[in-house]
Amino acid sequence: MNNEHKENTGFEIKAAEGGVCAPKGFTAAGISCGIKNNESKDLALIAGDCLCAAAAVYTSNKVKGAPLEVTRRNIADGRAQAVICNSGNANTCAPGGEKLAEDVCALTAEALGIKKEDVVVSSTGVIGQELSLEPFKEGIPRLKEGLGKEGGKDAAEAILTTDTRRKSIAVEFNAGGKVCRMGGMAKGSGMINPNMATMLSFITTDADISPQLLQRALSETVKDSFNQISVDGDTSTNDMVVILASGRAGNSIIEKEGKDFDVFSSALREVSVFLSRELARDGEGATKLIECLVENAPDREMARAVSKSVISSDLLKAAVFGEDANWGRVLCAIGYTEGDFSVENIDVDMESSRGRVTVCRESRHKEYSEEKAAEVLSADEIKIRVNMNQGSESASAWGCDLSYDYVRINGDYRT
Amino acid sequence: MNNEHKENTGFEIKAAEGGVCAPKGFTAAGISCGIKNNESKDLALIAGDCLCAAAAVYTSNKVKGAPLEVTRRNIADGRAQAVICNSGNANTCAPGGEKLAEDVCALTAEALGIKKEDVVVSSTGVIGQELSLEPFKEGIPRLKEGLGKEGGKDAAEAILTTDTRRKSIAVEFNAGGKVCRMGGMAKGSGMINPNMATMLSFITTDADISPQLLQRALSETVKDSFNQISVDGDTSTNDMVVILASGRAGNSIIEKEGKDFDVFSSALREVSVFLSRELARDGEGATKLIECLVENAPDREMARAVSKSVISSDLLKAAVFGEDANWGRVLCAIGYTEGDFSVENIDVDMESSRGRVTVCRESRHKEYSEEKAAEVLSADEIKIRVNMNQGSESASAWGCDLSYDYVRINGDYRT
Repeated sequence: MNNEHKENTGFEIKAAEGGVCAPKGFTAAGISCGIKNNESKDLALIAGDCLCAAAAVYTSNKVKGAPLEVTRRNIADGRAQAVICNSGNANTCAPGGEKLAEDVCALTAEALGIKKEDVVVSSTGVIGQELSLEPFKEGIPRLKEGLGKEGGKDAAEAILTTDTRRKSIAVEFNAGGKVCRMGGMAKGSGMINPNMATMLSFITTDADISPQLLQRALSETVKDSFNQISVDGDTSTNDMVVILASGRAGNSIIEKEGKDFDVFSSALREVSVFLSRELARDGEGATKLIECLVENAPDREMARAVSKSVISSDLLKAAVFGEDANWGRVLCAIGYTEGDFSVENIDVDMESSRGRVTVCRESRHKEYSEEKAAEVLSADEIKIRVNMNQGSESASAWGCDLSYDYVRINGDYRT
Repeated sequence: MNNEHKENTGFEIKAAEGGVCAPKGFTAAGISCGIKNNESKDLALIAGDCLCAAAAVYTSNKVKGAPLEVTRRNIADGRAQAVICNSGNANTCAPGGEKLAEDVCALTAEALGIKKEDVVVSSTGVIGQELSLEPFKEGIPRLKEGLGKEGGKDAAEAILTTDTRRKSIAVEFNAGGKVCRMGGMAKGSGMINPNMATMLSFITTDADISPQLLQRALSETVKDSFNQISVDGDTSTNDMVVILASGRAGNSIIEKEGKDFDVFSSALREVSVFLSRELARDGEGATKLIECLVENAPDREMARAVSKSVISSDLLKAAVFGEDANWGRVLCAIGYTEGDFSVENIDVDMESSRGRVTVCRESRHKEYSEEKAAEVLSADEIKIRVNMNQGSESASAWGCDLSYDYVRINGDYRT
């Protein structure tokens, strides 16, 4: 866990080891079963040792991958026990996709001795190509054999596509008088590449919490984490965030709002923001993580929208790639954000581990040293601070720069 | 005029020569007066020999260039007689911008012997840098001296920034028993680069038409032309389309809807679509023009939104650059367009001067020859045909591919 960016929640949330296997009640595995052409891992399994409370959020794209429809049905009762996820093929806009997703659930259920309606199924990869059941028939029994507390790394690797590294985290917190844990893994690279990327995130916890409260915590948290990242603005057809809660920590069950729900939500927010930052940092072709912090906005929704608009601007992203403190592009992106707010009195600063430079005051140019600005922008994490000076709400969004490599990766991905 | 892409309106609209000077009653000039660092042209003037009916549309960005505010006031009475436009500095977010724009109007009015409230003022270039009046003091009298019927080319050149070529057109049509002409010029490169680009378009006509009808025709036309192009999704602070009508053709004035208004609107649409295509084709770093034609949509607004969503997708743009028939990215971009429509039965074809290939039927992969697809995509104008199969409305949008050069141009523009 990146302690530099711990959220200041007022609760003690400590780093832990083991990713999605850190909480009691979960094992995982990841293998190569031949869905991808190369021999890299392409099938992941997370298994609960009991029926878990489950919650999920899905892509807003009207074109949805077949696995999303099946998962949505399976999770409708607020319960699930396992997650099976392949990379290399999105099982979207392909013939027989829903049947195949159901067959994958059945194979997983058979191997684990659970009901097929308790399996979460997910896919990421190329759209429009038929996915065969054969690799799953061979792979799922082998995955079952490999399940273990050390399997989190392999699972986190098996869901990757164009990502350059695993994204994984675990934390520890106290709720209901017990030590609880939460682990998560995610893949990108971006939200956002509908062909070979897709944002997927799977989170586990041993806290005991009702499905209703679990869904509430997840739905609130994604607004300030996964929904605040963008690599290229292209919302995938297969995006999915799923959380399973085993209850194995033995805390008194969280069934209503209050301190225990708040600490749980804080842990979930920390896990989600960490994974979101990792996703943005590893965006296709990215060389820099860009964070935009909007402060003193009239309301929270506006702060979210303005920060996301700034990190989504291709022009700003290209400027950051070129290490050019082109603040006019920040003002421009703020200006085309929907909503009713003033653009008369906006301050902009750019900041990194190498210092901070004030570039705009009251929506006007502020003299600064180009040398100093270039030094600040030469770091690999850039924070753009926007003070709207018209309220007290704040929010952050995370993106990455736009590089030659983004064009290269997406210009000839399939060939 | 590109006859290959003439709109089929049922009216005879013929190509003409002379750009904005083609209509009776207009002269133009363009010079270098030192606003740009290099010695290229940076100041343009279009002068009417009488007070003209005038209409305009402006950027939706909440951050607006100072010249837009002044122009809006000057044009409020539906009348104007001249357009003065500089490139090299946007006069936006800079101290004293509105005063400067008013002084530029006064200098122009003085040189031409007209009222300063009848001048349209416009600027494009870097945001946030103070613009001096000195170059205008020296340049405007010189512009006045240079005014002539041959000045359209110089004027069209003087408004360019990162554009690689002039965009200019003229047409001829019959209205109210008289031959009327319409001319236009525009600059990009894109809508869309708030620092050195901005979409500007100035159109002249000698047709006699009331300011109300002129505004109605313009507002309707931009929905299917200038508002349907995108290079990078970044809406500039200074975008402006202005039309002046001198009435010198001597037609009976167009004061109400009817055949004359329809033929006028058709001519305006032809001029606007031509300029829009030219702007998209010359987008920063562009190597290909991408057109998306959406057919059989439930309503016109939806057709516009879906086509614009497709040509705005970075992923699709990069795929076209790489000449990869990645139709999954088309479906994905359709799917995240806002609105209530079905994504179950969508057909996609890709087409160019080198042939046509069917890649998707009923939202599913359709077997095609990759060789043939690569051949189709190797042309420099690519048309993506989307059949939504759920209505009878259609619309087009125009964009360009995303290339290494876009990143290069925007990564180090100012330095």
